[in-house]
Amino acid sequence: MEADIAMDMLEEIRVIINANLESLIEEQKAIFGEVAEVSGNVLLAGGKRLRPIVTYLVYQMAGGDDIDAILPLAMAFELIHTATLVHDDINDNSSVRRGKPTMHSMVGQSKAIIGGDWLFVQGFGLGGIYNEDVVKVMANCCAKIASAEFMQIDHVLNLATSPEDYLEIVKGKTAGPFAAAAKGAAMVADLDSTESDKLFEFGMELGIAFQLVDDLLDVVGDERIGKPRGIDVYEGKMTLPLIHALTILHGDEREELESIITNFDDSKFERLIQLLEIGGSINYSEILVNNHLERASQYLEEFDDCDAKSLLQFVASMVKNRNS
Amino acid sequence: MEADIAMDMLEEIRVIINANLESLIEEQKAIFGEVAEVSGNVLLAGGKRLRPIVTYLVYQMAGGDDIDAILPLAMAFELIHTATLVHDDINDNSSVRRGKPTMHSMVGQSKAIIGGDWLFVQGFGLGGIYNEDVVKVMANCCAKIASAEFMQIDHVLNLATSPEDYLEIVKGKTAGPFAAAAKGAAMVADLDSTESDKLFEFGMELGIAFQLVDDLLDVVGDERIGKPRGIDVYEGKMTLPLIHALTILHGDEREELESIITNFDDSKFERLIQLLEIGGSINYSEILVNNHLERASQYLEEFDDCDAKSLLQFVASMVKNRNS
Repeated sequence: MEADIAMDMLEEIRVIINANLESLIEEQKAIFGEVAEVSGNVLLAGGKRLRPIVTYLVYQMAGGDDIDAILPLAMAFELIHTATLVHDDINDNSSVRRGKPTMHSMVGQSKAIIGGDWLFVQGFGLGGIYNEDVVKVMANCCAKIASAEFMQIDHVLNLATSPEDYLEIVKGKTAGPFAAAAKGAAMVADLDSTESDKLFEFGMELGIAFQLVDDLLDVVGDERIGKPRGIDVYEGKMTLPLIHALTILHGDEREELESIITNFDDSKFERLIQLLEIGGSINYSEILVNNHLERASQYLEEFDDCDAKSLLQFVASMVKNRNS
Repeated sequence: MEADIAMDMLEEIRVIINANLESLIEEQKAIFGEVAEVSGNVLLAGGKRLRPIVTYLVYQMAGGDDIDAILPLAMAFELIHTATLVHDDINDNSSVRRGKPTMHSMVGQSKAIIGGDWLFVQGFGLGGIYNEDVVKVMANCCAKIASAEFMQIDHVLNLATSPEDYLEIVKGKTAGPFAAAAKGAAMVADLDSTESDKLFEFGMELGIAFQLVDDLLDVVGDERIGKPRGIDVYEGKMTLPLIHALTILHGDEREELESIITNFDDSKFERLIQLLEIGGSINYSEILVNNHLERASQYLEEFDDCDAKSLLQFVASMVKNRNS
């Protein structure tokens, strides 16, 4: 499929999802007032809508043809994602998200905790039309997000974080929701459990690649067109390039890297990048992105060719080439 | 029904609920590790289990006889209740709950935000076996808790808080979950919507009375056997006795009361009580407790007499006479 056609088709899906999220918030504002308004503002402030897009496309590829049957699940994953962002932003003390002030910097921490809860609840409320197994996939995914976040908190500035620790955190926090969205969509389309599990793995691989690219953007991103750099390092988050470089470098360079990570400020950014280059850590992360995307693609292979499948492959290529 | 028999029967139900909550947490600890452990500790630290008990008894009174069909809903309401306590304790900066350190004072605020999320998610996960309408009742209840908490935050130390504002907050935050638990239980027992709605109102009246007693305990409770006094006043929460006294008193007494509420400390407690007595505000609150419990009782009248109904009436009398 041509890239510009794919972009147009994805944009159409994004428009549908956004329109439905907007009507949901409009409805809820009338009932729940300010909490719906401020939570809705974060939800509607933009975002790539990747989780609902994956949900929607997997459902179509799996033979589903009733958009009303899948939209609530697609929206649920975006609501839950936004809920975790609101609570993460409190925990990371972040003041900006998607180019706008974070909820807690607008309305204070107390309301932001409650606002995040409200978004979670809306997500699960939308899950009510699905059967027990689909709800279990959603709930298990959310519980894993929480356990991965605990682990991430414990690994802040932990220079002994292993690639296995890293992968466990990423699988729970970032990739798990993609996996659950894809599996849930397959279940709603009535695929059997072998096939749903394959789509779970597809989502997982796609999500791992997504996080790896996120890690890379934090060190090599172009700030003019994308997200600001160095935020993860400031927050003491052990991203894969750092973990890899800490493993590879030794002697003075390793000591220097430790000292940069532990006392990071902007003036040390250039030297940090040099050390990551010396360790081959950026290159290593890029190779891993490709590996995970390739595996993601393999899970799609046995499904019949169709637009939805081509679009999922296109989403994978977007994940690799994204700059924000 | 004799009080001691009723107490024994309620204790039996509490034991069943506690045992099921314990096995749930044991199971989840194996999967989710620390987040399940610390959240489980709060859940299992005690508590009256009033919401699950009401859920269970309403289901029985409504003719339900399959305990496995109602236990997940009963537990869900306790999990959701505990989730809100964890987040409330952060917002109120409380260090003790149910005689033990609060989650955030044990593991820090970041983990406590996530721990509360985990409890919410577990609650909704248990809701997966129910149909869309029951899930809607749960989700609507939780969303209302959030909007009521927003309102409560806005009314901290707001001396112009009206009884109507107060009632709206109480209905959303405290009484709503009792109402939703009772309605949900009725729906699971296949009652029609007229009857389920009556049980919703039963739960609402019971819950309002419960909160009014809570307000009273904050000013007239016996600390030796129950909860510490004055906490609500310290936190700037506008409880009904305060709202009533602010309405009734005038001149110097009103000014004095304003000053006590706005700059509260322990030394002013005795004078606060005197002013509430002068305003007749404690007596007024006690009358309201009786009125709401009487209305709760009326909603039960048309159901056939049975043990579950007698026990619900007994629960209402316990709400009135509780000291913690």
